[in-house]
Amino acid sequence: MTYPTISARAHANIALAKYWGKASVQNNMPAVPSVSVTLKALTTTTRVTWDEWLTDDEIQVNGVIQQGRGRERVVELLDRVRRFAGISVRARVISSNDFPTAAGLASSASAFAALALAATQGAGLGWDRARISDLARQSSASAARSLYGGFVRLGAGEGSTTYLPAEPLASAEHWDLRIVVAVLSDKAKAVGSTVGMNHTQTSSPYFEAWKAFCHGLAPRIEEAILRKDLKEVGEMAEQSALAMHASAMAAAPAVIYFEPTTLAVLQAVRDMRGGGLSAYATMDAGPHVKVITMGADADEVVERLERIPGVLRTMVSEVGGPAEIVSP
Amino acid sequence: MTYPTISARAHANIALAKYWGKASVQNNMPAVPSVSVTLKALTTTTRVTWDEWLTDDEIQVNGVIQQGRGRERVVELLDRVRRFAGISVRARVISSNDFPTAAGLASSASAFAALALAATQGAGLGWDRARISDLARQSSASAARSLYGGFVRLGAGEGSTTYLPAEPLASAEHWDLRIVVAVLSDKAKAVGSTVGMNHTQTSSPYFEAWKAFCHGLAPRIEEAILRKDLKEVGEMAEQSALAMHASAMAAAPAVIYFEPTTLAVLQAVRDMRGGGLSAYATMDAGPHVKVITMGADADEVVERLERIPGVLRTMVSEVGGPAEIVSP
Repeated sequence: MTYPTISARAHANIALAKYWGKASVQNNMPAVPSVSVTLKALTTTTRVTWDEWLTDDEIQVNGVIQQGRGRERVVELLDRVRRFAGISVRARVISSNDFPTAAGLASSASAFAALALAATQGAGLGWDRARISDLARQSSASAARSLYGGFVRLGAGEGSTTYLPAEPLASAEHWDLRIVVAVLSDKAKAVGSTVGMNHTQTSSPYFEAWKAFCHGLAPRIEEAILRKDLKEVGEMAEQSALAMHASAMAAAPAVIYFEPTTLAVLQAVRDMRGGGLSAYATMDAGPHVKVITMGADADEVVERLERIPGVLRTMVSEVGGPAEIVSP
Repeated sequence: MTYPTISARAHANIALAKYWGKASVQNNMPAVPSVSVTLKALTTTTRVTWDEWLTDDEIQVNGVIQQGRGRERVVELLDRVRRFAGISVRARVISSNDFPTAAGLASSASAFAALALAATQGAGLGWDRARISDLARQSSASAARSLYGGFVRLGAGEGSTTYLPAEPLASAEHWDLRIVVAVLSDKAKAVGSTVGMNHTQTSSPYFEAWKAFCHGLAPRIEEAILRKDLKEVGEMAEQSALAMHASAMAAAPAVIYFEPTTLAVLQAVRDMRGGGLSAYATMDAGPHVKVITMGADADEVVERLERIPGVLRTMVSEVGGPAEIVSP
């Protein structure tokens, strides 16, 4: 039997209400609900070829054959697909990001979303979007959200549930936000997000309070997104990010993702607001700052960010659409 | 009746287990227990003259006549002394710090400790040290600790108690630590510590968890101080400081005392430990970093700190003694 080569493209997303902590490590179930916006400008394209002639999976990311844990995580997803499709054939996976890998820019979200879509489609599984999202979630919780465009929610894992897909909240057309990514470093982060969140969960005195905070925040930010209230969404997003980093900073020993420039950018964003711009900051498990703003303010935000010493470059993104199959 | 002019000197202290939050704003009762070390090198000297000829209190700090809230806080302490002494005479207060005021270097601790000692003594109140500490605590909780030398604890206010002095844990001779203060700025802080802690208390999702954390930490750090275990004391002190700042960072809106250089210094302190030095960081309501170390490592710590761009200067302090009367 031969299988069609399938290419899929997915966008990164940034969580406005952050995901940090797992209800189940084994099933990769998030401990907290999260809400994200999909980023049109940050894309992973992944080509999957299930090939009877291969003796093992071949995984190439940005031109580099993957070994170790990077390879393992992809193989785990492929194994799940094989199990459901009842096949044992191996796959050739070629993936490329148009943004720096493993630097806090959530490349795993777009990567596993594109992989889940291409791998299931290529193996002939006629899954709906939710089921593909659930598959991606098992590899990377934020990847579940990158199956959808616009504004997306992912619940918290509860009880013994093992099925948890993300859910679309509003499409990209709902609200024409701009996200300006200020890239501060091309280094891979010192502490990966999985390690950082597990460490926070086991040693931070704030983890339980963080969970309670997230459960309270998610419905409020969803409601504010539906109302397109940038001030409320921005303030809640900023608090969510700072509370996430605070929970990690209080762990023993501390996990600090901020670099000095991160604080300079945070201060600049506050100053922008003081000067009448709509600008709110959010940071993931890395030093970079993403600024949530409107089209009318984006140029000014970029200009001010690029003036800050330590900001390597900026990228402006519109709100992106769902993951999709592209011509192979 | 004439009163003797009395000069008293008190040292600043840094909390190894931080004070942050009030059980009672009215009585200035701390919500959490704190543990500090007294700093020999940072001193306030305060001269108090109760003078029948004065029509109002005259308060001069570092050569500047005080107005507004700065004056009010001193007058409140003088009023308490007048009440207990049964006098209505006014006082001339002349105080000077040998370190920058209001820049996170806890000048209020040494200032109110010296003032409480000089004012009660000058008014003829034969109070014991604990009662003077309690008086200082009503003006500034950390000032209660500066009445004592060495290592000092201050409990949390409980129930309807209104009397709460600090208690000496071990004298300066117990443990020959060095504290290196890295001064990052001579600006007064944007958010004072009282405002910052009240805001944290009312709006941070982590405040209750912070309180619970502090109640667990205090007995452990006291025990480690008595054992002179620098690794344990240092790690706990660093976590206490980071958890305090984290609680403020999670507030709405965030209170961020760190400046970019603060993070650079924190990273440098981690690198020092990686290189075999005994060095642990603590930060109060300001950007400065105080590094806890041993005499043998202090020179190397200073040298490395002074290499960091943004560090204006360093000061090395031994452990200081109690507040004391000096010749007028």
